[in-house]
Amino acid sequence: MSTGRLEAFSDGVLAIIITVMVLELRPPNGSDFSDLHRSATSLLTYLLSFVYIGIYWNNHHHLFQVCKLIDGSVLWANLHLLFWLSLYPFTTAWMDEHFSRASTVVYGVNLLLAAVAFTILQRRMMRMPESKDRMAEIFGRDRKGKASLLLYATGIGLAFLQPWLALVPYIAVALIWLLPDPRVERYLQRQLEAGNTEHL
Amino acid sequence: MSTGRLEAFSDGVLAIIITVMVLELRPPNGSDFSDLHRSATSLLTYLLSFVYIGIYWNNHHHLFQVCKLIDGSVLWANLHLLFWLSLYPFTTAWMDEHFSRASTVVYGVNLLLAAVAFTILQRRMMRMPESKDRMAEIFGRDRKGKASLLLYATGIGLAFLQPWLALVPYIAVALIWLLPDPRVERYLQRQLEAGNTEHL
Amino acid sequence: MSTGRLEAFSDGVLAIIITVMVLELRPPNGSDFSDLHRSATSLLTYLLSFVYIGIYWNNHHHLFQVCKLIDGSVLWANLHLLFWLSLYPFTTAWMDEHFSRASTVVYGVNLLLAAVAFTILQRRMMRMPESKDRMAEIFGRDRKGKASLLLYATGIGLAFLQPWLALVPYIAVALIWLLPDPRVERYLQRQLEAGNTEHL
Amino acid sequence: MSTGRLEAFSDGVLAIIITVMVLELRPPNGSDFSDLHRSATSLLTYLLSFVYIGIYWNNHHHLFQVCKLIDGSVLWANLHLLFWLSLYPFTTAWMDEHFSRASTVVYGVNLLLAAVAFTILQRRMMRMPESKDRMAEIFGRDRKGKASLLLYATGIGLAFLQPWLALVPYIAVALIWLLPDPRVERYLQRQLEAGNTEHL
Repeated sequence: MSTGRLEAFSDGVLAIIITVMVLELRPPNGSDFSDLHRSATSLLTYLLSFVYIGIYWNNHHHLFQVCKLIDGSVLWANLHLLFWLSLYPFTTAWMDEHFSRASTVVYGVNLLLAAVAFTILQRRMMRMPESKDRMAEIFGRDRKGKASLLLYATGIGLAFLQPWLALVPYIAVALIWLLPDPRVERYLQRQLEAGNTEHL
Repeated sequence: MSTGRLEAFSDGVLAIIITVMVLELRPPNGSDFSDLHRSATSLLTYLLSFVYIGIYWNNHHHLFQVCKLIDGSVLWANLHLLFWLSLYPFTTAWMDEHFSRASTVVYGVNLLLAAVAFTILQRRMMRMPESKDRMAEIFGRDRKGKASLLLYATGIGLAFLQPWLALVPYIAVALIWLLPDPRVERYLQRQLEAGNTEHL
Repeated sequence: MSTGRLEAFSDGVLAIIITVMVLELRPPNGSDFSDLHRSATSLLTYLLSFVYIGIYWNNHHHLFQVCKLIDGSVLWANLHLLFWLSLYPFTTAWMDEHFSRASTVVYGVNLLLAAVAFTILQRRMMRMPESKDRMAEIFGRDRKGKASLLLYATGIGLAFLQPWLALVPYIAVALIWLLPDPRVERYLQRQLEAGNTEHL
Repeated sequence: MSTGRLEAFSDGVLAIIITVMVLELRPPNGSDFSDLHRSATSLLTYLLSFVYIGIYWNNHHHLFQVCKLIDGSVLWANLHLLFWLSLYPFTTAWMDEHFSRASTVVYGVNLLLAAVAFTILQRRMMRMPESKDRMAEIFGRDRKGKASLLLYATGIGLAFLQPWLALVPYIAVALIWLLPDPRVERYLQRQLEAGNTEHL
């Protein structure tokens, strides 16, 4: 199967998740600048989750630029990823309304399970015969992916001690992914130089 | 007519339905793990409906991979299917808030009518001259489709006796569809081997 | 300009409008079948607006199958149409919550202005040099379009007398459009027979 | 990288933002025409924000018609723009519910930051080697863009004196962009005349 419709559907779901969260942002109840203050943490929480979804969209985009022929197992691995991402508005809203040990742990567990789902999706795609070698070359070591899993797990542990501490590793994951992936950029650069624009 | 825009529109609607349901998930009112408990059944109901919509997306994707030229009747048969699927958030929310005989019956009726609409869509597509033979070969017997209709009807009957019992056949339908359809996979495999990538 | 992105954006907006309305459907407050009764009129109102949006999607699809090169004025005529369609959830919700002279008049005015916007869009597209002749041949007389404008205006008049009466011409418009447009089907059929699949 | 998926994702986000704002429009509480009066300012505010998003979609569409090969920095510049646009429903709702100095200043700041983000995106895209010359020729002077930044800043200043005054420059920006960009139209016209339909 080709990946066109899977990409379109995932784009739709990610676009909705990223904008649905802004619906949770209630406008301030008063009319002064000071009333905006209460919305400030909500805005920061929204920003964090926006960045995560943006990162997933970016990485998803990279994966499917390299791998173009998939089977049914990839469809389900992708839906599995979308399921955990679709819970972000829910866990984000809880952490925003009740910042506590429980809500930061649950937020971290959601982040961790989405990262695990992404790893599974990547592994499934590495088995597709058509793109096996390219995928292994580019995503084979996956140090960023492994570091993310570790950081999320650390965050969940820290959340049990002190909720605010958990945010440090959570934010660290966002930071290490914010830069575009040099492996994919290099691969695409080489393709371009080789005059092979088919996979661009 | 080609199917490109119909697929894009359906992807949009399905993507929204699948994520709109998560908006119904209210974050817990307290800040402890125990407060999450009340959200647990909501999460399971959400998971069930997410899986159903995922299955429909998968099957819809399969149908339109085989049939590429359609007429106006398919447009309406598709909108008819989307109508029943668009009611899932409504019937899911009712069953979640008031788990009762009435709400499980209505949920089952919604599931059944969506399955009937899918059967109608498939039948209409089997009449398209361009893909008639391929469609008949792949979807001709449609045992899974018939079993689903039977299971939904059984669930509706059981719901009158005891709401919880209805969930058994409802979940059974999800399980029999979770695996990708070997008929389509085999067809696509043969196409690939024959070097015919036009329909992929 | 080609129409690809305009179609994708319009599909997105229409997909959201059609599903956003279902969010207005509140699940019943009780757990019995009788509690569903209160939702019944909401469901019928939802069905009516779903059918209208479905018709617009169908007709929009037909227009852009015939006309493939557009200019900036078509972009704005299309956004103008989407604006009036985006108000359907608002006017539908008002009519549903307060069925009165005012709300049925406003609903009709919304329907009428969307129909006027569609007529403007069609006229603009008839001026595109590349598809001028095809468009004039297919959409030249536009009897259905003119009948719709007349019926909506009649409905608005009747709503001043008696709100329920207004629904008769409103529903009549939906019925005359439910069948696919034979003019477009004929055109596409001829193209297919001539082996010209470029515009399909 | 090609721009197909970036455009599809942006279309999705913009389509949702433009329609999500209509969800903020509560239907009137009464059943008379006079009850609609209270919704009138909400409708005007909605219209203004709809026009802004429509303008961004138009301009975004123009940008990506000229530039077809991008790198990772454009992906993030685009997400940065979508972030500020995704806050429109939030700042629009606040200004609508509490029309005050603070809310009009914050609305203006949101408009300004989105315009800055668009300028950054355009600058990044002007560096792409493949389309550098075309971009410089078409968007080089960018007088409309600079005028917008100035007008937004003026509006924010005026909002501190008198909230209503701020609306004059805000609306002025919408008006100067409502007309399609003659630079892009001219470019596309020349391409068409040269028989070069590749970038259309």
